[in-house]
Amino acid sequence: MNKKLIEEFSALLGKERVLSETEELLCYSYDATSKGFMPDVVVFPLNAEEISKIVKLCLKYDTPVVGRGSGSGFSGGSLPLKGGVVVSFTKMNRILELDEENMFVTVEPGIINADLKSYLAGKGYFYPPDPASYEFSTIGGNVAECSGGPSAVKYGVTKDYVAALEVITGEGEIINTGSKTVKNVSGYNLTQLLTGSEGTLCLFSKITLKILSKPETNSLILVSFGDIDKGFKAAIRLLKLRNRPSMLEFMDKSSIESVKSYFKSDIIKIEGKFLFIIEADGSQADVDKSIGEYEKILNEFSPIFIFASGKDEDKKVIMDARKAISPSLRKYGDLKINNDIAVPVNKIPQMLSFLEETSRKYEIPVINFGHFGDGNIHVNIMLEKNNAGMVQNGEKAKYEILKKTVELGGSLSGEHGIGLEKKEFMKLKYGDYYMNILKNIKNVFDPQNIINPGKIF
Amino acid sequence: MNKKLIEEFSALLGKERVLSETEELLCYSYDATSKGFMPDVVVFPLNAEEISKIVKLCLKYDTPVVGRGSGSGFSGGSLPLKGGVVVSFTKMNRILELDEENMFVTVEPGIINADLKSYLAGKGYFYPPDPASYEFSTIGGNVAECSGGPSAVKYGVTKDYVAALEVITGEGEIINTGSKTVKNVSGYNLTQLLTGSEGTLCLFSKITLKILSKPETNSLILVSFGDIDKGFKAAIRLLKLRNRPSMLEFMDKSSIESVKSYFKSDIIKIEGKFLFIIEADGSQADVDKSIGEYEKILNEFSPIFIFASGKDEDKKVIMDARKAISPSLRKYGDLKINNDIAVPVNKIPQMLSFLEETSRKYEIPVINFGHFGDGNIHVNIMLEKNNAGMVQNGEKAKYEILKKTVELGGSLSGEHGIGLEKKEFMKLKYGDYYMNILKNIKNVFDPQNIINPGKIF
Repeated sequence: MNKKLIEEFSALLGKERVLSETEELLCYSYDATSKGFMPDVVVFPLNAEEISKIVKLCLKYDTPVVGRGSGSGFSGGSLPLKGGVVVSFTKMNRILELDEENMFVTVEPGIINADLKSYLAGKGYFYPPDPASYEFSTIGGNVAECSGGPSAVKYGVTKDYVAALEVITGEGEIINTGSKTVKNVSGYNLTQLLTGSEGTLCLFSKITLKILSKPETNSLILVSFGDIDKGFKAAIRLLKLRNRPSMLEFMDKSSIESVKSYFKSDIIKIEGKFLFIIEADGSQADVDKSIGEYEKILNEFSPIFIFASGKDEDKKVIMDARKAISPSLRKYGDLKINNDIAVPVNKIPQMLSFLEETSRKYEIPVINFGHFGDGNIHVNIMLEKNNAGMVQNGEKAKYEILKKTVELGGSLSGEHGIGLEKKEFMKLKYGDYYMNILKNIKNVFDPQNIINPGKIF
Repeated sequence: MNKKLIEEFSALLGKERVLSETEELLCYSYDATSKGFMPDVVVFPLNAEEISKIVKLCLKYDTPVVGRGSGSGFSGGSLPLKGGVVVSFTKMNRILELDEENMFVTVEPGIINADLKSYLAGKGYFYPPDPASYEFSTIGGNVAECSGGPSAVKYGVTKDYVAALEVITGEGEIINTGSKTVKNVSGYNLTQLLTGSEGTLCLFSKITLKILSKPETNSLILVSFGDIDKGFKAAIRLLKLRNRPSMLEFMDKSSIESVKSYFKSDIIKIEGKFLFIIEADGSQADVDKSIGEYEKILNEFSPIFIFASGKDEDKKVIMDARKAISPSLRKYGDLKINNDIAVPVNKIPQMLSFLEETSRKYEIPVINFGHFGDGNIHVNIMLEKNNAGMVQNGEKAKYEILKKTVELGGSLSGEHGIGLEKKEFMKLKYGDYYMNILKNIKNVFDPQNIINPGKIF
């Protein structure tokens, strides 16, 4: 790293907003993947103008620049693969405007999803996207990765809420895309192009999100089936309802087994081959009506256990069972390959069979759960770090699972992104011509290839 | 036009799918704007492979190629500005797959929106986007322009339903974007980039749309206020409801006056300064509940007339009043500048005042109505074709209205697109750098600039 660049950053931002000591940099070198790459310097801008100047300095010194929220990503999106500059959004975490008449909120990218949610809840509003990381991931990261979560089955994913962006391109220019209008046809939809672009086209400085009125209440159902086909058919029926569930999480046999021995409760049973946690939200009357309707449908398919409740203590127990999946996995190994895939909903049973076969074939635990309504399966390939043969088999399994995903018309990633973790697999789905379109779009926004280089392709 | 190209088309498609006589071409030279441009040849492909070959021939002969659905656009998107080849999608109007488990329908671009709607209704499904032209506009045209309509207030616009596309780029290559999954993060979101790209980046050959279950029924309210502010506040309250209206159309004073003398009814009154037509849809119980809630809110703001009904004959009368706007305008002039703008919802009153001022300033009728929930105002500047001074004033008014729209944070077009009609106004909103990004994206998909040249920029 050129010392002069660090000096220029210090002159621009003040020394307290520039980190360059190894022990300081270390904190910005990792994310939720097991990988780590050291940045050369970390900077903390306060606004778009500063980011623009930072990018222009990076251009001058031909140095990579990578945006970073909380570093909670599962695909390596915020890792400085080629060193260079990490732009931390920690100091850009303000709510800039709550526009109650138009129902939009404008925020800086560094705000934590949960902080935004609770601020809005206090005002009677609701921002649905709820990635598992919502308590620590930032809205900027969520927009970069187009994060989803359990609520996507009813409410959609991050892209469905992004109305307008202020961004800094790879040329250090500030542009504004979109508007606070639902309808907007004036030139290409750059807002949607930049959402989910994994931090490779620009850095965000302002994000305007659509918000909803807060649902009054919710109730949950935990239901399990001894037969995959019956569970599948029941869940498909729920998806056809106009008042479809606001959550439709599932565990397959493997994760039921994993949780069973880890989680104990007096009121619910974790058993069977296909288990669902189902939520209805809305007014009390609507929730009661929906839960009644869901129960009626579920009972047509002979569940082996069903429990519904709107009581806080019961809902906590049900959600605790869901949250128990990840810690329960530890017994299977100390290395987890977290493979986030999405298949068309009706291919879920076929995919689950394939995952079971793959587990048998390689003699490694493959534990699966996810968001049924959007075909999003979190496949956890459990390995022992020090068992080289096993790790190699795990990588083979990952490859075969992604190949099968593409065969079934699915997506290589549902909500984690491609980043570093899956870039070598893009060719499973896309030909050279398609990949060149992506690269050329990258080139439009970042001709010197300094914004988060080495990701996606 | 090169005779050889026409010969090559005939060899490829057969003579019956190639038109080149002047009287035949005339039918493909106009749209809903008052402009017309003659194509040199019209071709009727049956599939992506044929379209690919057509585009490759156009590349060889360096000839523009423009896709055309029904030619019902208001922005000139389907007009062959520079002559060349019109690709008519008339013969590509099939429903290719109804995927009931995943709730998607895959169609060819030439299918009429209304035909798709009625096919789906017969199966219990629902595709919401409902541009005013839905009885004759094609899904391909709707996707190209990202069409909206009254239902957008609850259901969103075309882009919210496009899940996957098969397209032919300006290099004649066939690519597939998106997937039948709600969650999909693998490379940039080309599906959303191509939706609303106004036929300038590619030609569509297959479109996969998300569908919903059909609402059981609907009811309507017609309500008018003598005071703009009260009407505005009432409508804003409706938008905050979780069960927000599925339609929230408005007429301002000018269109109320226009319709008043044209439309007569025994059951409803067209009067006041701000009039709304409001729909609730869903199950009978939900509709009744919503209508009750809407009426309660509306009555808090002292409407001068309110009428609600779920009866077919009453609903027809109410919708007839809405449909009367356009024909009622004819008395004001024989030339209409149809200016489709969108402003943030809370700027509607300010925009309506400005429109009234503009009308007074230029002494020309400016009649306004539209979709309140998305701030989408259809501004109708009424002129006399043979009065040159008046026409000139109309153009000045159009310019000032667009300028004001941008000042209020709005969009130059809500649902009609930029096309030819507004390309000179893009600079009101976007700087050179932004416009260059759009042009460079065009260049990625269409390096020889043969796909619908001269539109947007």
